[in-house]
Amino acid sequence: MYTLYYAPGAASLAVHWLLIDLELPHTLVKLDIAAREHKTPEYLALNPSGVVPTLLVDGKPMCEAAAMAVLLAEAKPEAGLIPAPGSARRAEFLQWMFHLANSLQPPFRLWWYPQEAAGEAYAEAGKATAEARIHGVFANLDAHLGKNGPYLLGDAPCAADFMLVMLMRWSRNMPKTALDYPNLARLADLMKARPSWKALYESEGLSEWA
Amino acid sequence: MYTLYYAPGAASLAVHWLLIDLELPHTLVKLDIAAREHKTPEYLALNPSGVVPTLLVDGKPMCEAAAMAVLLAEAKPEAGLIPAPGSARRAEFLQWMFHLANSLQPPFRLWWYPQEAAGEAYAEAGKATAEARIHGVFANLDAHLGKNGPYLLGDAPCAADFMLVMLMRWSRNMPKTALDYPNLARLADLMKARPSWKALYESEGLSEWA
Repeated sequence: MYTLYYAPGAASLAVHWLLIDLELPHTLVKLDIAAREHKTPEYLALNPSGVVPTLLVDGKPMCEAAAMAVLLAEAKPEAGLIPAPGSARRAEFLQWMFHLANSLQPPFRLWWYPQEAAGEAYAEAGKATAEARIHGVFANLDAHLGKNGPYLLGDAPCAADFMLVMLMRWSRNMPKTALDYPNLARLADLMKARPSWKALYESEGLSEWA
Repeated sequence: MYTLYYAPGAASLAVHWLLIDLELPHTLVKLDIAAREHKTPEYLALNPSGVVPTLLVDGKPMCEAAAMAVLLAEAKPEAGLIPAPGSARRAEFLQWMFHLANSLQPPFRLWWYPQEAAGEAYAEAGKATAEARIHGVFANLDAHLGKNGPYLLGDAPCAADFMLVMLMRWSRNMPKTALDYPNLARLADLMKARPSWKALYESEGLSEWA
């Protein structure tokens, strides 16, 4: 049984989306980020970094959205969202999961909170640098999808595509967005066509980038 | 069969260490970073981000050190360095692997290359901020190990401990290092006592932080 602590549109989105897509029974706890509900002593006891999401797995707290995505995909291997250990695409799957977590999600955090990169005085420069790094990763991913797509692993989706579309969504208010890359845009179209996308938007009360 | 493109002491270290510790047959290709051998067209064809390491798995290139660590631990499950899917410690294992890749490795990169955070003009401020973020993560990890150690998962090591000790090593020239945290220092002592650590140092020609 899963309980997801989430905030609409935050890093919890991919986890929530996978819970719906995989039809895994779950309950939701919505956090009000503006009210700093992710920084209360109660939440910090579950998630010492004070970030969203936290997933309770049979009552035990777990952090890191990408780790949750792997765990959920493993919980229902018959859905085919994760290649089995030892299978041909396993290495590539792991590579993309860590690449998104390691190289794309961190500059997004710095784009939102540029003072974390070099202090308040350098926030503007930090924001511009983060945006350039994000586009460097988007460009490489778009080239990969152009050659090997339409999904990250080729002809079928995996949990990493859910992570990537969530991260692409975060670019929606940039001057140039992920949808300006043709192969990323094609991936978004395919993933948004899943019935789970609409259910996710309804559940989180989202409208932008539908 | 594995071929590892590495540079002594770089992010390849944990992968190289696991190859030795797990007694997996492998060949090594050493890259001269100062000569920018990681930026040649030949290497970029294997690793589009131009970073170390790359692992060839049966001739196919794979990126992201943490992904390689998972793949190698999975290749020899009997060594016990990765909890099986569905087992009690699986969630926690995945959490630590992604946490190290997502929250500790990126600020180290910014500490080395602070111009990547906010441009050359802000390198000094960027370096200081990166160092503060690193210590925030070290402090949380030390608290976790104090309560639940001596290893990340408790009484036995896993692949994430190899990653963590590599990242701790990277702090060795900071004013305050990872070894100034008592539970991190205990973990380093335990991990350095493995015969594979000495073999790794000999193979890479390392001496610092032995």
